[in-house]
Amino acid sequence: MTSQRVGLWLVGARGSVATTAVCGLAALRAGLAPPTGCVTERLEGVSLPAWDDIVVGGHDLVSTPYEKRAEHLARAGLLPHHLLAPIVPALRDADAEVRDGYHPTTHRGPQELAVRRLAADLETFRFKHDLARVVVVNVASTEPPVPVVPEFASLESLRAALADPARAVLPASSVAACAALLAGCSYVDFTPSTGVALPALDELALAQRVPYAGRDGKTGETLLRTVLAPMFTDRALKVLSWSGTNLLGGGDGATLSDPARAASKLRSKSDGLASLLGGPVTAPLHIDNVPDLGEQKIAWDHVSFEGFLGARMSLQFTWTGLDSALAAPLVLDLARLMAAAHAAGIAGVVPELGFFFKDPLGWDEHRFDRQSAELVSWARSLDGRR
Amino acid sequence: MTSQRVGLWLVGARGSVATTAVCGLAALRAGLAPPTGCVTERLEGVSLPAWDDIVVGGHDLVSTPYEKRAEHLARAGLLPHHLLAPIVPALRDADAEVRDGYHPTTHRGPQELAVRRLAADLETFRFKHDLARVVVVNVASTEPPVPVVPEFASLESLRAALADPARAVLPASSVAACAALLAGCSYVDFTPSTGVALPALDELALAQRVPYAGRDGKTGETLLRTVLAPMFTDRALKVLSWSGTNLLGGGDGATLSDPARAASKLRSKSDGLASLLGGPVTAPLHIDNVPDLGEQKIAWDHVSFEGFLGARMSLQFTWTGLDSALAAPLVLDLARLMAAAHAAGIAGVVPELGFFFKDPLGWDEHRFDRQSAELVSWARSLDGRR
Amino acid sequence: MTSQRVGLWLVGARGSVATTAVCGLAALRAGLAPPTGCVTERLEGVSLPAWDDIVVGGHDLVSTPYEKRAEHLARAGLLPHHLLAPIVPALRDADAEVRDGYHPTTHRGPQELAVRRLAADLETFRFKHDLARVVVVNVASTEPPVPVVPEFASLESLRAALADPARAVLPASSVAACAALLAGCSYVDFTPSTGVALPALDELALAQRVPYAGRDGKTGETLLRTVLAPMFTDRALKVLSWSGTNLLGGGDGATLSDPARAASKLRSKSDGLASLLGGPVTAPLHIDNVPDLGEQKIAWDHVSFEGFLGARMSLQFTWTGLDSALAAPLVLDLARLMAAAHAAGIAGVVPELGFFFKDPLGWDEHRFDRQSAELVSWARSLDGRR
Amino acid sequence: MTSQRVGLWLVGARGSVATTAVCGLAALRAGLAPPTGCVTERLEGVSLPAWDDIVVGGHDLVSTPYEKRAEHLARAGLLPHHLLAPIVPALRDADAEVRDGYHPTTHRGPQELAVRRLAADLETFRFKHDLARVVVVNVASTEPPVPVVPEFASLESLRAALADPARAVLPASSVAACAALLAGCSYVDFTPSTGVALPALDELALAQRVPYAGRDGKTGETLLRTVLAPMFTDRALKVLSWSGTNLLGGGDGATLSDPARAASKLRSKSDGLASLLGGPVTAPLHIDNVPDLGEQKIAWDHVSFEGFLGARMSLQFTWTGLDSALAAPLVLDLARLMAAAHAAGIAGVVPELGFFFKDPLGWDEHRFDRQSAELVSWARSLDGRR
Ligand SMILES: NC(=O)c1ccc[n+]([C@@H]2O[C@H](COP(=O)([O-])OP(=O)(O)OC[C@H]3O[C@@H](n4cnc5c(N)ncnc54)[C@H](O)[C@@H]3O)[C@@H](O)[C@H]2O)c1
Ligand SMILES: NC(=O)c1ccc[n+]([C@@H]2O[C@H](COP(=O)([O-])OP(=O)(O)OC[C@H]3O[C@@H](n4cnc5c(N)ncnc54)[C@H](O)[C@@H]3O)[C@@H](O)[C@H]2O)c1
Ligand SMILES: NC(=O)c1ccc[n+]([C@@H]2O[C@H](COP(=O)([O-])OP(=O)(O)OC[C@H]3O[C@@H](n4cnc5c(N)ncnc54)[C@H](O)[C@@H]3O)[C@@H](O)[C@H]2O)c1
Ligand SMILES: NC(=O)c1ccc[n+]([C@@H]2O[C@H](COP(=O)([O-])OP(=O)(O)OC[C@H]3O[C@@H](n4cnc5c(N)ncnc54)[C@H](O)[C@@H]3O)[C@@H](O)[C@H]2O)c1
Ligand code: NA
Ligand code: NA
Repeated sequence: MTSQRVGLWLVGARGSVATTAVCGLAALRAGLAPPTGCVTERLEGVSLPAWDDIVVGGHDLVSTPYEKRAEHLARAGLLPHHLLAPIVPALRDADAEVRDGYHPTTHRGPQELAVRRLAADLETFRFKHDLARVVVVNVASTEPPVPVVPEFASLESLRAALADPARAVLPASSVAACAALLAGCSYVDFTPSTGVALPALDELALAQRVPYAGRDGKTGETLLRTVLAPMFTDRALKVLSWSGTNLLGGGDGATLSDPARAASKLRSKSDGLASLLGGPVTAPLHIDNVPDLGEQKIAWDHVSFEGFLGARMSLQFTWTGLDSALAAPLVLDLARLMAAAHAAGIAGVVPELGFFFKDPLGWDEHRFDRQSAELVSWARSLDGRR
Repeated sequence: MTSQRVGLWLVGARGSVATTAVCGLAALRAGLAPPTGCVTERLEGVSLPAWDDIVVGGHDLVSTPYEKRAEHLARAGLLPHHLLAPIVPALRDADAEVRDGYHPTTHRGPQELAVRRLAADLETFRFKHDLARVVVVNVASTEPPVPVVPEFASLESLRAALADPARAVLPASSVAACAALLAGCSYVDFTPSTGVALPALDELALAQRVPYAGRDGKTGETLLRTVLAPMFTDRALKVLSWSGTNLLGGGDGATLSDPARAASKLRSKSDGLASLLGGPVTAPLHIDNVPDLGEQKIAWDHVSFEGFLGARMSLQFTWTGLDSALAAPLVLDLARLMAAAHAAGIAGVVPELGFFFKDPLGWDEHRFDRQSAELVSWARSLDGRR
Repeated sequence: MTSQRVGLWLVGARGSVATTAVCGLAALRAGLAPPTGCVTERLEGVSLPAWDDIVVGGHDLVSTPYEKRAEHLARAGLLPHHLLAPIVPALRDADAEVRDGYHPTTHRGPQELAVRRLAADLETFRFKHDLARVVVVNVASTEPPVPVVPEFASLESLRAALADPARAVLPASSVAACAALLAGCSYVDFTPSTGVALPALDELALAQRVPYAGRDGKTGETLLRTVLAPMFTDRALKVLSWSGTNLLGGGDGATLSDPARAASKLRSKSDGLASLLGGPVTAPLHIDNVPDLGEQKIAWDHVSFEGFLGARMSLQFTWTGLDSALAAPLVLDLARLMAAAHAAGIAGVVPELGFFFKDPLGWDEHRFDRQSAELVSWARSLDGRR
Repeated sequence: MTSQRVGLWLVGARGSVATTAVCGLAALRAGLAPPTGCVTERLEGVSLPAWDDIVVGGHDLVSTPYEKRAEHLARAGLLPHHLLAPIVPALRDADAEVRDGYHPTTHRGPQELAVRRLAADLETFRFKHDLARVVVVNVASTEPPVPVVPEFASLESLRAALADPARAVLPASSVAACAALLAGCSYVDFTPSTGVALPALDELALAQRVPYAGRDGKTGETLLRTVLAPMFTDRALKVLSWSGTNLLGGGDGATLSDPARAASKLRSKSDGLASLLGGPVTAPLHIDNVPDLGEQKIAWDHVSFEGFLGARMSLQFTWTGLDSALAAPLVLDLARLMAAAHAAGIAGVVPELGFFFKDPLGWDEHRFDRQSAELVSWARSLDGRR
């Protein structure tokens, strides 16, 4: 496996997370930056693709060149200014591998055509670079929640709907997921969008013998919640309320200022809390778009809890994160791990990757420590499976 | 085991932690309060003494009756006002079991005499109440650090020094520990004082076949640090500095306003951080006496860390705890667990109780999640040993 | 003036703010508590009614006796437990002076009748206690915003509408205000409800020669904003965003969990910010109902600002207030000051009381320091006017 | 006045504050940055030197060129990267005007010689650039507190001590101040060092007919304290404790990690609090050197206060400032205002500039609002005096 090249295909390839991943990979390969934030670097004794063996490409709807995006990231504190010049050649290479993504507004004809076009892009990419396999990671803008329709229940019924030129049954994220699976690529949902999380697509993944994982990268407030909540339960302290406010700027802030889209995010953020605390608590939660924060995200949480004899106490924290700096190394980690899982013959959902996600598919375990231990032992077992 | 009565002997019996434990035990036995904060209640399938089977007594230097101390706790938010009346009889019982502690200033003669007097108090208590065993827990005021002298190295050399009327070789906490072991009682150090942590006393514990554990109850800032630090390492994020300020009032605040005594505490608080983070970081730490806070403790921590491509981020938290409400249920837990360990024939240091302590004796593991898992599996193994 | 007795009539007489004011006045009169939080105590050289000269009464819709309400306040940290017993007689006196308030659901007939009934209660109260004058303060639950109708524009048109049995043109707060003015009482709006803030009622106040003031007591987040915002402008620093979250329990928390009612509050809270900062800024603001907080209110604000050469900085604060402990002394202050203003012959809106309010009627000045200076000089001028 | 050129002479010319001022002035003159943070821009109707009329020079002990210092500031977030190139010529001009400062270790001979050398540098600078007057601003590293000796009491006794080659009676800051006054330049102390604050130097300032002001620029925690404390007093709330921790990196952080030097700072920071609150309160205060913060300063303050009926409440804030971005525009403001004061014939201490300082010389008023009002009315009166 270590000698084989793999592809990392980013849906939302020109967004902040994707651009940070692309710039960071270039810097890692040039030895210009340490792999801070990459958890796979800590997995000793696990064979994973080397940084040099990863080729990037992707889909997006916009065409701003990476150089310009990288300058923006530098101003936002995501990329040291001195790295800009040395990575320019790598950014130009990446520019050459970005194709037009799917959008319902511009597409004509049955959705099946869109799926096939995206899948063809993936196959071309794999062929052109002689890649052993390709990992597709969705880092496109968060979509609004999608109503469940009967067509999602089986691959057969989905296929029929996709062929109907009068319908657009799948949201864009699921079109991307479907194309990935069809092209024999593994798929990761780093967003809270629907993506691969449909019975029909699970069926497809198993049929195609490709693994998938998700959902919604866990990088800020939720990360802390999954670390802190077990402390309260392990110490038998009773959480009474857990209130939160998130301030964010950037593209994600703008997207989430649309209440419909924020709904996806809020749901995936708060679902876990009840599970962590063993029952529901008062938990008001807000996401506010504060453009001046740029790529920064500030989360304030206030936890009110009760101790012995009803004593009232509280914990509050403020997290000031640069979201893409937290997300991008995880995207690279997921590329490595999914490539290895695929090589090891794993198909369908990979619950052991729950460590990375707010809303882990296939495993209802939100506790960070359990997820962390599981990730390590699963990764160590991969070699044996091959 | 469940049918046998055990003793809980508190050194510092009239302090805030001890009084909260005494009041709380009375309330638990009367069914007037739930066991919030008691981790042993969550240990399913482990046989431990019932609340009804625990009798309390202790040593202190002051004689304020429990009723008065309880009123103070109620004003401080540690005890609901409506619980005061129903527990008065239990408090009077407890008053009857408090004896004069040891203090170097008032003691005359060789320290050996002090040790014997304290041990005799323990034996009388055990006999009087027909107790299967007694657990001594040190919750007295924190002492200044003690210089290491050669006499600490072996039981033999310690014995000689104890017999010398011209010396006071042991600090009060170690006099108490020595007395406990001599009297065949298990011993727990809930403070950062020297206590049992001397080679000579370890020898004595093994000789007497009694278990001991410590040191310094982990209830606030350090608890959070041992929960949060693993998140940074598991996510490969680089902590650059971890600064902390603790504001506390109460008896503990007054004691720790003495820089010599604070030294013990600061050491036991910060020792763990380097171990948790895999190396030293800038970590200024303060303890301030702020009398108006009463029994409240407020800790503010600021963590500065680096992510991918050198991105700079931070986490800060403010913890507002009622220290004794966090400590007292753990003291009750430790009484139960040590009684069970003693019954199971365990002798010497019990590293598996590191979950409770800032400075765990016998195990250099500070990560909360590992400690928590270890505690559970150890407790479950106890029954089998008997 | 100092020898004359005055009445304080509370609309919402059994709410938290009102009960705290009633208990506090009893404690002040008995010399059992210092006047902390009463700004009139700092106004040297101004003749105001003595605490002994104030008699309380009011309207409410509920009938829970004050003793019970006081016990609740004690549990919530608003009243020391030891004060409960000594003030019982005063609380019983107060109970005897509470009358049924007006509510649209239970009222029958033209609103005019309701106004007359409430006014009659006021007159009876004034006569019974031989009061020189009565100050009516509205501390009832916040109402939803009310659409402006043409009838509000003049006293004449309002009168016609009030006589119409088929209409309920005024919200309850304005019915109370109208009754107060009709009965020759001064009126203060401590809530963001409509109350007296209608042209028709301004006309009535001038006709009746009584003063009025408002609106919405400034006790927490807004207080801080009006103190901090001038710092940024006086230092020529550019505020980019000012985000806020308020967590509150209690009756007020429950009321404001109704988005319609919260709208009034949010408007009166945020209106001032743009005025303070000389223009609009991004300012997301939330009010969350967190019942476990009881009477506590926790506000977190995050201010992002720019300095020289575009440097990005921030200020965040967390305010943990007991709202009624901040509001009640101001209600007593307002009773004294309005009585003095009335005695001095002032009629209509009193802009100089803006210091007390989030949404100061009659003066568009939100800066705390200017309001504070104005209050002092206005109060000092009162004696001269008489 | 507006047509005349003035000099700004920075003691500590290559430090962060000074370099930010030099870069910022260049950017202002080139129209590349708005004057955010410059309070003189808000003083309408006051004649002050234009940015184009200010020439900079200074003393320092190090010789790192400004271009290099500016690059450091850009990395630290104090200067936008795109400003670096356009200001290079101005930075080279400034480099040419920096002379060697005085340091006791390298100086030989009576201190008088040092004073004369520094004064000569100032005279040369004034002559070379044909300046109407020069304002000397001390922004050098903070010195440890200096014991008061009898020689400080009068100019005569100071002169004798300065002539004695066996003594070094004045700290470096006072040598600089003395030289400034001797050369007929006004002097501002932006640091907590002794500087001009000696009776002998006050005498000299009056004799030379030059104004002076100080001490210790108010830019962070203290600024907030002087804004917030009056809120508590104006609202009759009783502050019980005000605890603070300051985390800082940069040159200033390194200097203040020396407890002797921090002592100056802590004193000037805390002196004001008692004065603001009308008496002493518990007020633990720390300054920690946290190098990774770079030019950032983070201050956390916790205020515990009491309201009506003893209710306990708190306010905490976290200030994240870029100190030099706050200080530099004030240094430019002070240059303008002192030049105007000098032109208006003002001599000796200028108390009306207290607005700028933690430890205002000549006026024991720490309340921000009063200082702000006084500054404005004083500045407006200047034209009339000329
Ligand atoms: N820490 C994190 O940053 C983090 C954590 C969890 C989840 N996420 C999710 O990752 C996603 C990306 O975040 P971001 O900050 O990079 O956002 P962004 O707005 O900067 O980038 C999103 C990109 O997706 C593109 N896009 C939108 N619709 C598309 C489509 N149909 N096909 C292809 N491209 C499309 C956009 O043009 C844009 O370039 C978001 O959904 C966010 O919620 C991020
Ligand atoms: N969460 C917590 O409360 C917590 C956590 C960790 C450690 N601790 C430690 O627990 C101890 C007790 O804390 P507290 O808040 O109850 O303090 P406290 O000051 O209220 O009580 C200490 C008691 O010890 C008594 N004492 C002092 N010297 C003694 C001696 N030689 N023999 C017998 N009694 C003696 C004192 O008279 C006092 O009654 C402290 O050392 C504290 O550092 C507490
Ligand atoms: N610091 C503060 O507490 C503060 C600050 C500003 C404004 N306020 C406002 O003061 C008001 C009172 O706050 P609270 O915490 O005491 O609330 P609360 O819910 O405890 O009390 C409100 C009382 O008003 C009564 N009421 C409701 N409608 C009425 C009517 N039509 N006539 C007579 N009584 C009526 C209710 O029965 C209740 O007893 C609220 O509107 C609140 O927004 C409070
Ligand atoms: N907001 C603020 O930045 C702020 C606020 C108040 C006070 N201050 C004070 O301003 C001063 C400067 O702060 P900074 O951050 O620029 O510090 P810095 O360490 O970056 O710069 C200090 C400079 O002074 C020079 N210096 C030291 N001794 C000298 C001497 N005898 N003669 C000439 N130069 C000398 C040093 O070489 C250095 O270049 C400090 O004393 C600081 O306490 C700063
Ligand atoms: Na954990
Ligand atoms: Na002010």
